[in-house]
Amino acid sequence: MSKLVNDFNAYRQKMNDKIIASDNLVIKRFFNLDTNTYQDGALSAKTKEMLGLVVSMVLRCDDCVKYHIQRSYELGLTKEELFEIFAVANIAGGSIVIPHTRKALEFWEELTA
Amino acid sequence: MSKLVNDFNAYRQKMNDKIIASDNLVIKRFFNLDTNTYQDGALSAKTKEMLGLVVSMVLRCDDCVKYHIQRSYELGLTKEELFEIFAVANIAGGSIVIPHTRKALEFWEELTA
Amino acid sequence: MSKLVNDFNAYRQKMNDKIIASDNLVIKRFFNLDTNTYQDGALSAKTKEMLGLVVSMVLRCDDCVKYHIQRSYELGLTKEELFEIFAVANIAGGSIVIPHTRKALEFWEELTA
Amino acid sequence: MSKLVNDFNAYRQKMNDKIIASDNLVIKRFFNLDTNTYQDGALSAKTKEMLGLVVSMVLRCDDCVKYHIQRSYELGLTKEELFEIFAVANIAGGSIVIPHTRKALEFWEELTA
Amino acid sequence: MSKLVNDFNAYRQKMNDKIIASDNLVIKRFFNLDTNTYQDGALSAKTKEMLGLVVSMVLRCDDCVKYHIQRSYELGLTKEELFEIFAVANIAGGSIVIPHTRKALEFWEELTA
Amino acid sequence: MSKLVNDFNAYRQKMNDKIIASDNLVIKRFFNLDTNTYQDGALSAKTKEMLGLVVSMVLRCDDCVKYHIQRSYELGLTKEELFEIFAVANIAGGSIVIPHTRKALEFWEELTA
Repeated sequence: MSKLVNDFNAYRQKMNDKIIASDNLVIKRFFNLDTNTYQDGALSAKTKEMLGLVVSMVLRCDDCVKYHIQRSYELGLTKEELFEIFAVANIAGGSIVIPHTRKALEFWEELTA
Repeated sequence: MSKLVNDFNAYRQKMNDKIIASDNLVIKRFFNLDTNTYQDGALSAKTKEMLGLVVSMVLRCDDCVKYHIQRSYELGLTKEELFEIFAVANIAGGSIVIPHTRKALEFWEELTA
Repeated sequence: MSKLVNDFNAYRQKMNDKIIASDNLVIKRFFNLDTNTYQDGALSAKTKEMLGLVVSMVLRCDDCVKYHIQRSYELGLTKEELFEIFAVANIAGGSIVIPHTRKALEFWEELTA
Repeated sequence: MSKLVNDFNAYRQKMNDKIIASDNLVIKRFFNLDTNTYQDGALSAKTKEMLGLVVSMVLRCDDCVKYHIQRSYELGLTKEELFEIFAVANIAGGSIVIPHTRKALEFWEELTA
Repeated sequence: MSKLVNDFNAYRQKMNDKIIASDNLVIKRFFNLDTNTYQDGALSAKTKEMLGLVVSMVLRCDDCVKYHIQRSYELGLTKEELFEIFAVANIAGGSIVIPHTRKALEFWEELTA
Repeated sequence: MSKLVNDFNAYRQKMNDKIIASDNLVIKRFFNLDTNTYQDGALSAKTKEMLGLVVSMVLRCDDCVKYHIQRSYELGLTKEELFEIFAVANIAGGSIVIPHTRKALEFWEELTA
């Protein structure tokens, strides 16, 4: 895998471990709940990851985008579908989403290379 | 249909007509593009409407929520699916999304009564 | 109590009950976690409610402001302290917070009348 | 003048007076500074009000929009210029700005009737 | 030109080319519309770029700020005018805009050196 | 002190000095007012810095977080209190606050090492 992808994952894992280790009960439960949110249910896990991705784009959270792009890709997201998510994010969120679209595509390219 | 739903739709239509009548080319094209965004493609129209709905919730735009709830419902969204969209919106966007969840559910109930 | 305060509380309770009744597990746990967040701990409940209030102001969520103003007041918040929270919210969040400051003060006045 | 315009101005004035009367020094200075920001300088007052208006739209603050529309109109803003501001706000801020565009146009129409 | 400016422009161009090459019609039209928005009209291109700049600052999009600073500078923006735009952005958007003001000034200095 | 902390402080100071040197009166007064906001009053300086910190987290301004973490630490904030602020920020602002929590903890660790 690419350095961009690896570095992101390593930093994310290292800091999440430290946050969990703090033993703040609210945060531990929230991290747990966050994971449970994207499980298969009435909507498939893939659909939920797409929801998580589009939300991350309009809220302009590059690290959240990276996480959900990986999960969506693992669950079968295609490049054509990715661009339709980009389209919704750009139209709903406006041109300020464009810089995040650039970074999202760069991450996707490294991930799928 | 309920007064809440009818009033929203009537006001929305009336003002959109006036905006379009202004003949500002950028805005006319943008409104047109906004409609095209949610057509069937690599992703189904229903999936795209769910993306539009979750985005509207985390961006806390009650009127956008009302619009996408109607479109999603026309395309077959169930109440169980609606709540899973609410779940993603609340976990990703936080407790500030709760008041918008209350209004979204109220609109859904009037719409589907 | 005032009509403004009563109406807010009644609508909030009614819709929260419906949301909980839906039996979406993620949302039920999130609502529960939200309540637990503001309990006494290393920081007092009053301090946490002040944190919740200032957050609600800069995120410009009027209903969240109403909720945290009530809780803060029950825990002993004074008007002078309230205005210092307003000051932080306005300086950090800018003049777009002013309209929400107007509504927050109106709610406080009705609550404490 | 219209009821919509009058009611907005009356409520705004009444609550601003109460906020100022609180004697919180930071808030008093901030309100004063806010007024000074939009004076003639290297940029004209009209240009600054247009900046204030477009900012209010993308930050989706309806009351701020109402205030800056009035000030801009007093300083000579035309309907054609208004719509070009709407265009920038919608393209930069996305379709979530549309509901605020509807309300802004309604307010403009009442103001200029 | 400076490395900061060149690197930004090169990355922006490279990724925009890839996004356009994807042939997603909505995104292609949106990019096109975004460019058209800032043309001379009832308001001058320079005024519109100033609108785009102030919006980018309050929405805290550093890359958007860089783009609009360059365009505004090409169209004759002076440093005194730039600071009046900063003033509107800081007062309307609050102290959270300060870090973006620092980066904006750094970019301006490199651009105009 | 750590390189992360030093670099942040040096860049912040250098650019703030340049901004102040511009002699834009609104900005100079706003910077001054921003400092005054966090002085002891009805609420202690420490409580106000905690308010500033939680606001910076939900508004997802990493540089603002770094500044308020330093000030809070100087005024006696403990790690347990820090995590309770993280908890409020994550629950109110949602999972998009998590990446900023990672960076905040990293900065705290370097600061207190």
